[in-house]
Formats: sequence, C-alpha cells, structure tokens
Amino acid sequence: MADYDLHHHGDREVGPGLVDLAVNVRLPRPPAWLRAELASALDSLAAYPSTSDAVRAVAARHGRSPAEVLVTAGAAEAFTLLASAFRPRHAVVVHPQFTEPEAALRAAGHAVSRVILSEADGFVLDPALVPADADLVFVGNPTNPTSVLHPASSLLSLTRPDRLLVVDEAFLDAVPGEVESLAAGHPGVVVLRSLTKTWGLAGLRAGYVLAAADVVERLRAVQVPWSVSTLAGVATVACCRPSALEEAEKLAVAAEADREYLVSGLASQGVDVLGDPRGPFVLVRVPDGASLRTRLREAGYAVRRGDTFPGLGPDHLRLAVRDRVTTDAFLTALRKLS
Amino acid sequence: MADYDLHHHGDREVGPGLVDLAVNVRLPRPPAWLRAELASALDSLAAYPSTSDAVRAVAARHGRSPAEVLVTAGAAEAFTLLASAFRPRHAVVVHPQFTEPEAALRAAGHAVSRVILSEADGFVLDPALVPADADLVFVGNPTNPTSVLHPASSLLSLTRPDRLLVVDEAFLDAVPGEVESLAAGHPGVVVLRSLTKTWGLAGLRAGYVLAAADVVERLRAVQVPWSVSTLAGVATVACCRPSALEEAEKLAVAAEADREYLVSGLASQGVDVLGDPRGPFVLVRVPDGASLRTRLREAGYAVRRGDTFPGLGPDHLRLAVRDRVTTDAFLTALRKLS
Repeated sequence: MADYDLHHHGDREVGPGLVDLAVNVRLPRPPAWLRAELASALDSLAAYPSTSDAVRAVAARHGRSPAEVLVTAGAAEAFTLLASAFRPRHAVVVHPQFTEPEAALRAAGHAVSRVILSEADGFVLDPALVPADADLVFVGNPTNPTSVLHPASSLLSLTRPDRLLVVDEAFLDAVPGEVESLAAGHPGVVVLRSLTKTWGLAGLRAGYVLAAADVVERLRAVQVPWSVSTLAGVATVACCRPSALEEAEKLAVAAEADREYLVSGLASQGVDVLGDPRGPFVLVRVPDGASLRTRLREAGYAVRRGDTFPGLGPDHLRLAVRDRVTTDAFLTALRKLS
Repeated sequence: MADYDLHHHGDREVGPGLVDLAVNVRLPRPPAWLRAELASALDSLAAYPSTSDAVRAVAARHGRSPAEVLVTAGAAEAFTLLASAFRPRHAVVVHPQFTEPEAALRAAGHAVSRVILSEADGFVLDPALVPADADLVFVGNPTNPTSVLHPASSLLSLTRPDRLLVVDEAFLDAVPGEVESLAAGHPGVVVLRSLTKTWGLAGLRAGYVLAAADVVERLRAVQVPWSVSTLAGVATVACCRPSALEEAEKLAVAAEADREYLVSGLASQGVDVLGDPRGPFVLVRVPDGASLRTRLREAGYAVRRGDTFPGLGPDHLRLAVRDRVTTDAFLTALRKLS
C-alpha cells in the first residue's frame, strides 16, 4: 500500500534559478528580530539544550499546563514519537494530507488504513468515513495539500474514549484568528504545531505537541535526549511572545488576501482551485498536469506535484501563496503555457 | 534492571555560580570562526535542511564512501536509531559507560544485558566477558566515564559475522592522533562520532554514524525527516575541514597536558585516578563520595556523580579536565574539604 512516494516533499522540487511555489514556507528568511535572537544564542551552544523555557512559553501561549506540552524538533519528530510510543490496533490517516504521518507509522511497523476524502465534495471531512474501530487517527487542519480547514465540530465528532485523534495544525497559525483550532485542549485530541512555515525556520526544526499529560509523558519517554536544539528552544520562546503572535496574525491576514488574489487570477484563466482554500497554498487540477509542471519548471517556476499524495494524481498541483508581484509573474507564465 | 537513573547526565549537575567540572564539553562556546559560519547560515533557515554537504564532508574526512555516513542530531539520535532499526536477540552494553545506549534500547522494548568491566583491572576491555550470542554490542572508546581507551585490537576481537559492534567514539577526537579509532571502516563495526565535546556544540546536536552502507540505509529508514538542522549541517562541514582537524589535534594535545596536571594534583592529595585516563575527564574514587560532592557544590564546584553509571557507586566522581587555573582552584577547594 506504500504505493506513493510518501517521502517526497516540496523541498525536492525547488532548484537554482527557480521561483519556489513548491515549498509552503512563507518568509524567505526569519525576520530580523528573530535572527538577532538566534545570533545571540550562538554564544550559549556549549551547554546541553533544555526545553524548560520553551515548554513554559508554549503552555502560556495556549493556556495549557506545561505537563501538556512537548517541544519537538519540528512537527516531523512528533509523528515518529507517536508511531513509537503507541501500538495502535487500527491506525487511520485521512488523506489527501501530508504524507509523513503515514510514513512514520509504516516505518514503525504499523499497518495503516487510508480514508480518502472526496474531491467532488471539496475534500470536506466526513466523519462517517473513519472506521469505528480506529484507535489512532491523523487529520491535518488546515490540510496540506488541499488547504481545506475542517470545522472544530467535525473534528471533535471523531473523538472516542479509546481513540487518539491527532490534528496536525502545522499551518493553523496562517489562518487569521486561528479559528477551528483544538489547541486549547480536548479529551483524546493531540495537536501538533510548527514554527517552520510562518517564521521561515524550516532549517531549524521547531514545533510542539499539545496533549493530555499522560500522552506527553509517553511521547517524552521515546524522544531522543536533547533532540530539540538550543536555538529551536530560543525560537519557540520568541515566537510565543505577544508581539510575535500579533505579527503572525498580520502575516495570516496578508496571506489570505494574497491567496484570494491568486485564486481569482487562476479563475480568470479557467483554472479552478479545488475545495475552499484557507491555508497559504492552493490545490488545483489541470489537464495534462505532469506536462504543465515540467513546462512551468522550464519557464522558471517550481510547483508541487500532487501525485505523491494518496487520493490525488498527476493532474493535481499545489501552489504556494506568494506576494502579488510573484503571483502576477507566475500567472503570466502560466497563461503563456496554456 | 533499570535500577540506575540512566537519563541522569552532567548537565543536570551544573547550576548558577558553579564552576562546571560535571559536563564534558571542553570549550565555553564555539570558536569565533565557527560562530561566524553559523551566524551566516541564519539567513538560510527558511529552506528545509539537507545533509548532503555534511555527508560528503564526513566521508572525505574519514576516507569512507558517502553511503557509509549518516549525519545525526548528535550521537544521542544514533542510539535511538540503532534501537529502532534493529531487533537484537541479545543486546549487550559494556559498562561503566554512557547510559543513553542502554536507555534507548530499553525504550524500544529490548532486553539488555550488562557487562561490567572490573575496576580492579582498571576497566580494561575483556572480550571474554561479552556473551557469545550477543548480536548488538555497545562499547565506548574512550569510555565515558572511565576515560579508558580500549585498543582497536581488543575491539576488533569482539566482531562476529552476525554481530553489530557499536563503538561510541564521541570523545575520540580528544585523543591526540585519534589512535585506536575504528572510523576507517571494519566489517560489523558501527562508529558513532560527536562534534559536541570538542567544538562547544552540545546545544546544536551534531554527530554522525560511520557504518556499512546497508546499516546506514536501515538507520536512515527510521530517522525523523530533517532531524539534522541546517546549522548542524553547516557545523559538520566546517569541523571536517583540515584547518579544524588541525585545531582539534592541538586542543587534544593541550587537554592531555591539562589532564596530566589534574591527575598529578589529585595524586598529591592522595586521590587516585582510576584506570588509565586518555579522555578529557577522569574518574576517581573517594571515601564518602556523595558527601564530598555536596561539599564541593557548596564550595562552588559541580562534579559528576558516579552512582548513575552501572558498575559504579556513590564514591565515584567524574571530573572534567579544565585549564590549569581552574584545576588549581579546584584542587585548593578540594584540599580544604579533605
């Protein structure tokens, strides 16, 4: 069933001289205030890292107890920890979505069932599709690559006393108001967060888990000691400050406007965006998509192939939302190729 | 059998205002040239990390094929990868040694047998102690906390066609000439290296594995995606350069002289160093060690307790080798307490 290349990601599609619409990181580099904090921390690298400050900062940001927070080396580490710490009888991944959760489950030796949301229905979450006996369920919100934001109520209808529902909110800080987030805490829900996308920190590996204290304890028990670097801890503290949250909200509002600009530009060329996009990227379906992707590369634009996502095929392409100048140039290139 | 606190490490013993003789990191911060390289790399953090350059640099430094190199988030990650990727019938850890290998094996659900080297024999490696059916064996070289350097020939006598011998060489770059290293490649041998100790990078998580290509492939299959940060990759490349290796050798020679100074200072107070120390730390046995450790803390000196290491007890203390000024002050404090 590992028929898709689950380890393919947008970072493999970028290249020298290409405008990057393939990777969902929004800033070209971390903001100056964050780089300055990281630069100061270089002096303290001789000491072993500790996540205590970062845990406290995350807990305060989300109104959780520190015992309900695990700081991780990016959200990717959290998938592996979940797959190592738990022995699900029936693990389910709701697709199309980021493929690393399924890859981590398979690497740990677990069988995985796929629930594929319907494109015709706009990839809306249908709780009835999830098997009743599933005890570990992974959903993305907003979902990569569909950009669909599931209502919190739909997600909560998936909770069960003997089930862990993992909601990957890696892109939720790109949704104005962080609506539909389950970060505040709900029984049986594990929330994953990332600092990567909003703050231009993909290279630093910074994320965290919000879950019941007993779940956090089980994940911590299998975490590689010191897996979170000193700099990732510093970045986590910095990005939880009220001033950073305010800046993130402004970026989210701007990204929303940029996304609408991209969507209407695509529509004017007859390219329909699938679903109701709420994240900083959109999913499209185009005729002869594989060929178009190649021609876009030749024209200088890297877009994310869709065919490595279960439920999608070669005609699906994911486009990152960029500023209007970049989007205009991309749309012009796209028009020439159509 | 997890009767010792295997997760206790020297970093828990340091504290504000204490002179740190507990942690085995040698520099108070990374050298200026390295900090400058890391600072430049802060601009490229938006991209997902890649270890390609680091793998090539490590391979070139040790004369190995890139397929025989896995760059890791510190040596600690390598223990977890080994414990996840392999299902040993009989895992053996040669103690006293760094406790994370045993902790990682236990966390992955494996039973672990302990081989305890004899203090009376100076913790010399006795290959006859290792059970014939052991298929995964962990040895440190030089060993933390005994500082004993095992001869390469003793280690190689432990290899078997159906056994993986893991040699933790985290401190071997602190031994002048890197004598007794197995990094050049031997069938059935997995070598772990760290950049942490020599370069003041404990907070960055940078290390690597040298092993046969099929072993590397199995470890890579269970590695968290992007677990090695961009900065750890940059540091790895930088620390493999000939100029860095030359500097490391000078630091190793200086540490050796500093160690001899510490050993003779201890001897002049009737404190005998155990074994034949070859690393940047020494192990001592003192009467009423737990009390002495407390009194040293009160006098401003943090030393590493020995009783969390299988095979050692409360009278064992590990002392980091520091410069002569620090050592003189420590010896003066020690004399007052004796």
